[in-house]
Amino acid sequence: MELLKVSSQSKPKLVAGAIAAVLRNGETVEIQAIGAAAVNQAVKSIAVARGYVVPNGIDLICYPAFSQIDVDGAEKTSIKFVVENKS
Amino acid sequence: MELLKVSSQSKPKLVAGAIAAVLRNGETVEIQAIGAAAVNQAVKSIAVARGYVVPNGIDLICYPAFSQIDVDGAEKTSIKFVVENKS
Repeated sequence: MELLKVSSQSKPKLVAGAIAAVLRNGETVEIQAIGAAAVNQAVKSIAVARGYVVPNGIDLICYPAFSQIDVDGAEKTSIKFVVENKS
Repeated sequence: MELLKVSSQSKPKLVAGAIAAVLRNGETVEIQAIGAAAVNQAVKSIAVARGYVVPNGIDLICYPAFSQIDVDGAEKTSIKFVVENKS
């Protein structure tokens, strides 16, 4: 599974392009975001990506989950989105 | 479709309970959030709700989208999540 790390500075259109590319390859993508601003950018990216893949007959769905990750030795709670083709 | 409006002050566990109740009734729920903090609470709520409905055999999925809404006469862009049972 491809992993994309999204920050508060990430550009939704660029992240959406990366999500779309993975889905068109028939693969699933995991998006990781820490903090409200990053989660917001991740959600926008997923919403934009839906429009990118519709012409390819892909109906994108996502599942959010919590995930504990290690950042410079400190444990932080991140939000993880698994994005895949519904069909 | 049930509509839940989530703000930055919403409690994820309470919103998750509301999402779970709608899904157990076999219905679909739409969650509306404006701003990064509200979107973050909405995503946490959906992640918590997944755990609530798993024992009921419900595999929750969501689709984020943009939505224009009217707030006190001004048009704002909100994030809308449609949450439903996968199967």
